[in-house]
Amino acid sequence: MGGDAAAMTAASQARRARADLEIIALEKGRYVSYAACGIPYYVGGVVSELDKLLIRKPEEFKQKQNIEARIRHEVVGIRPAEAKVVIRDLDAGREYEEPYDELLIATGAKNVRPELPGVGSEGIYHVASIDDAKELREIMEHKTPKRAVIVGGGYIGLEMAEAFLRWGVDVSIVGRAPQLMRNIDPDMGALLSDALEKMGVHLYLGEAATAFEETSGRVAAAVTAERTLPADLVILATGIRPNAALAAEAGIELGTTGAIKVDDHMRTSVDHVWAAGDCVETTQLVTGKPYWVSVATVASKQGRVAGTNIGGGDASFAGAFGTTITKAGSIEVSRTGLQETDLAGGELEFASATINSQTCTGYYPTSEPMTIKLIGEVGSGRLLGGQIVGGAGAAMRINVVAAALEAGMTAQQVAELDLAYAPPFSSVWDPVLLAARQLSSKL
Amino acid sequence: MGGDAAAMTAASQARRARADLEIIALEKGRYVSYAACGIPYYVGGVVSELDKLLIRKPEEFKQKQNIEARIRHEVVGIRPAEAKVVIRDLDAGREYEEPYDELLIATGAKNVRPELPGVGSEGIYHVASIDDAKELREIMEHKTPKRAVIVGGGYIGLEMAEAFLRWGVDVSIVGRAPQLMRNIDPDMGALLSDALEKMGVHLYLGEAATAFEETSGRVAAAVTAERTLPADLVILATGIRPNAALAAEAGIELGTTGAIKVDDHMRTSVDHVWAAGDCVETTQLVTGKPYWVSVATVASKQGRVAGTNIGGGDASFAGAFGTTITKAGSIEVSRTGLQETDLAGGELEFASATINSQTCTGYYPTSEPMTIKLIGEVGSGRLLGGQIVGGAGAAMRINVVAAALEAGMTAQQVAELDLAYAPPFSSVWDPVLLAARQLSSKL
Repeated sequence: MGGDAAAMTAASQARRARADLEIIALEKGRYVSYAACGIPYYVGGVVSELDKLLIRKPEEFKQKQNIEARIRHEVVGIRPAEAKVVIRDLDAGREYEEPYDELLIATGAKNVRPELPGVGSEGIYHVASIDDAKELREIMEHKTPKRAVIVGGGYIGLEMAEAFLRWGVDVSIVGRAPQLMRNIDPDMGALLSDALEKMGVHLYLGEAATAFEETSGRVAAAVTAERTLPADLVILATGIRPNAALAAEAGIELGTTGAIKVDDHMRTSVDHVWAAGDCVETTQLVTGKPYWVSVATVASKQGRVAGTNIGGGDASFAGAFGTTITKAGSIEVSRTGLQETDLAGGELEFASATINSQTCTGYYPTSEPMTIKLIGEVGSGRLLGGQIVGGAGAAMRINVVAAALEAGMTAQQVAELDLAYAPPFSSVWDPVLLAARQLSSKL
Repeated sequence: MGGDAAAMTAASQARRARADLEIIALEKGRYVSYAACGIPYYVGGVVSELDKLLIRKPEEFKQKQNIEARIRHEVVGIRPAEAKVVIRDLDAGREYEEPYDELLIATGAKNVRPELPGVGSEGIYHVASIDDAKELREIMEHKTPKRAVIVGGGYIGLEMAEAFLRWGVDVSIVGRAPQLMRNIDPDMGALLSDALEKMGVHLYLGEAATAFEETSGRVAAAVTAERTLPADLVILATGIRPNAALAAEAGIELGTTGAIKVDDHMRTSVDHVWAAGDCVETTQLVTGKPYWVSVATVASKQGRVAGTNIGGGDASFAGAFGTTITKAGSIEVSRTGLQETDLAGGELEFASATINSQTCTGYYPTSEPMTIKLIGEVGSGRLLGGQIVGGAGAAMRINVVAAALEAGMTAQQVAELDLAYAPPFSSVWDPVLLAARQLSSKL
């Protein structure tokens, strides 16, 4: 069930393990194995051809791996007792059943659609599918919209802001939360806000959209409690949720995050039913607690583990730190592990250290401001998480922090890492080391 | 003794610990605390002003930290029995003695000067001092040399090739070794050679310079066994050695690498004499064996440890993996830990995996080729080292490998790291993960 990262990685992996399996992928959309993360770059014109986002087509899966990918086929029911799924063929308009020996649920996430007056007007888009990508790019190329309002200040919101700026569209971001990107702390979010405002993006944070005005069925403005923002185009980027309803209906256990509960082999609570990707709950490796994160890296890893196990192998997926990264124009942002707002409950005593530095030696001309924040546990000295906001070259430093988390390093150990230095790349004391040293002194 | 990274970091650190110490830095050159690593970028015109390389001047050390930096004062003898050093005031042309309670030797490295016919001609330079930097930049700006020959294909050789290319100078690199950069393996060196040749650099590797021809005292050509290369300018970048002669004369023990032996507190074999920076031997953390590496990061860390301890504190420096990085034009290169050529002795059974991939998602337009090679120990599965050659954004990935080495991770653990992904930054499976996975299957 599904046709993107987790599903198709699992299918390929199962095929590698077992040549004799009959493998069917059921995808309700028109595409399988597409690069959803690339959509904002296609809309923005950074990526020229839509075809580049279509990593593999159904025919290729058939020819190269004997995997049958049925597009426009939506699973509408799971019947574990009968080992069957009920499928709707969307083009033919009929339903049929398909039996399984092993079932993988990889139904991903679904967009939260705010039920606001006027939300059904033309010109209001999600950014989730290849069809959205096509339509938005055509609008950019042929309809020259003047003003776009993006509802939501997370990853998609930021990436779409960059896309619209590239076409010279006036961009506003409206967000219910008082900051951009809730998976970084407010102080780091403020840096991001400053950078976006400098690029000309208008930010209306702490201001929920309450309605959309329309003219002859087309969106004309987004309305908040404080103002009315004229808009030729609206993007709804108000978040996503695990797409786990079918699983729940079938009696498959969900976790506390609302996503499907799986063990480290990606088994659900029901025999012969597996799940992977954005629809499943995983473990936050810093705390060992249930965690839901929607990223292609985790989905692919989980798909690989599920596919290996379905193919008779023995693989496991321990969890994730929630390492994520993006950029908007010239500003980069990344994070991993726990942030201060995660720790507000008081279960762990923590401290943080923030270093305002530069992406490389100050005298090197590509040097840009970079802020690194690290968080650690008082007493044990253990690193708990990190966040980075800065210019080109800043955000990929988060991988060192992710590796340090995996290793369970203390801040002191991080401060002593043998990191690379040359003037175009870093400072003699890489700012990660300086942040870790300062953090260590507080733990 | 000394006035750059190790010496001045130690001086500052000792001052932080003890306000009452009388601290004197003795530097034979005209500058203290200068960014030697920045010299090629100043020569190339990437860094516009020489002043930017002069991080702090002697007056600043005096005013801000009450550290007396005596420039043009060279220590010519160490007398531990009398707790004195003999100093030559180079401008006054006289010698005098200075007593010490604690002495830090931070005399750095010295250039290997090949004793070849014609090596004394005008127009032949090392790239070591601020004076070299000044002179070379003036030549670039005012004398428009047509052809430069660089003898030596290591860091300085590569960085100077970039500098000369920026001025439109025709560049040849002559190297005795059959590859560029002996601290990467030959297969990775070949990638670097290809990239440099594409930039127009002529490479004559496996060809030692045997003499320099001159015309009226100025260099006219560099000669090898195979050819004569006309040259308006020659750079000698034939390597460096620890500058440990004075220490040896004073009876201070040297290690097997020829550098000063120190313990993890940076104490030498003689009481009250400490050493730090390029003149000392350290430990290769992968093997625990004596190791000599000349990098500003290690020198600064050692200086900090020495300064802390001299100031009455208790700090230690465990060793280094030899993490280094540089670029030449559009190609980046980095490495850490052991390479295959280090392992030729056969003490450790090893395997390697090399992944030819890209710096970010293939469909993103800034994507460039990147090759990652990882090496691990057969049996234990432990990661031993890594090397990266590739386009913009490739080389800093070495820091993840360095963190993994510090943590003693297996290749399998590296393959499971939660690394960041977004299309402008990486692939869903970061190539470090793919290399580690492939390596793991061989261990």
